[in-house]
Amino acid sequence: MRFTALEIAYMRTQDLGRLATVQPNGTVQVSPVGFRYNTDHDTIDIGGRAMATTRKFRNVAGNNRVAFVIDDVLSRQPWRVRYLEVRGTAEQVHTPAGPWPGTDGAIIRIHPQRIISFGLDESDRDPHELVPFARDVA
Amino acid sequence: MRFTALEIAYMRTQDLGRLATVQPNGTVQVSPVGFRYNTDHDTIDIGGRAMATTRKFRNVAGNNRVAFVIDDVLSRQPWRVRYLEVRGTAEQVHTPAGPWPGTDGAIIRIHPQRIISFGLDESDRDPHELVPFARDVA
Repeated sequence: MRFTALEIAYMRTQDLGRLATVQPNGTVQVSPVGFRYNTDHDTIDIGGRAMATTRKFRNVAGNNRVAFVIDDVLSRQPWRVRYLEVRGTAEQVHTPAGPWPGTDGAIIRIHPQRIISFGLDESDRDPHELVPFARDVA
Repeated sequence: MRFTALEIAYMRTQDLGRLATVQPNGTVQVSPVGFRYNTDHDTIDIGGRAMATTRKFRNVAGNNRVAFVIDDVLSRQPWRVRYLEVRGTAEQVHTPAGPWPGTDGAIIRIHPQRIISFGLDESDRDPHELVPFARDVA
């Protein structure tokens, strides 16, 4: 497993992530997406209605470098944000059923190369003292 | 103004966005960030503690293409997400004070080239019928 138990638990508390991809002309895009942590493959799977027709799905065929992030604001006074960012390569996968009912079965599967998490288990520490937990995993 | 009144109002309801940038080696990254809509410049300004030392700040000097998104989940049954995505070019700006107290005054200023908003004013429509409002603005 490349993710820690704490990171996997955090993924299960969130249902909206954001996927950054790069278009063939170099334009960067970032899209809100539904996602699942795939325990069998230790990957992040992203699906959605008519996924196969989306530009993000086509983007990863041309340039498979992607980044994905989930986050939330734990408190505003003091300002305290938690997040999990995954950088890696993306693969187009066509599943017969797909993880989401009502979708076309196409998913973007992210294979992590670098994982960065922040503030997931230290809600009682001064936010200015927190350090990201970042490491290469591939 | 490149943003609609509805989009500006939506930006004021959110305080956490995500900025996607590209590193010199082509790695994509996406970071949670605090932001402000800058009414004087019609830009999105991103600041933070020690911003000038961050990789995202350095990234935009090498490759100024960026994307930024804010979003929220309005309902889960049915699944209803709203978002505002901005694609454009980023500029490093050093301000004496900066928009955020306690920061180093360095900001990333996003000049929009394409704006895409979704679901901001149609909370009573079937989510499957919603269409993104996307247009080039530069």
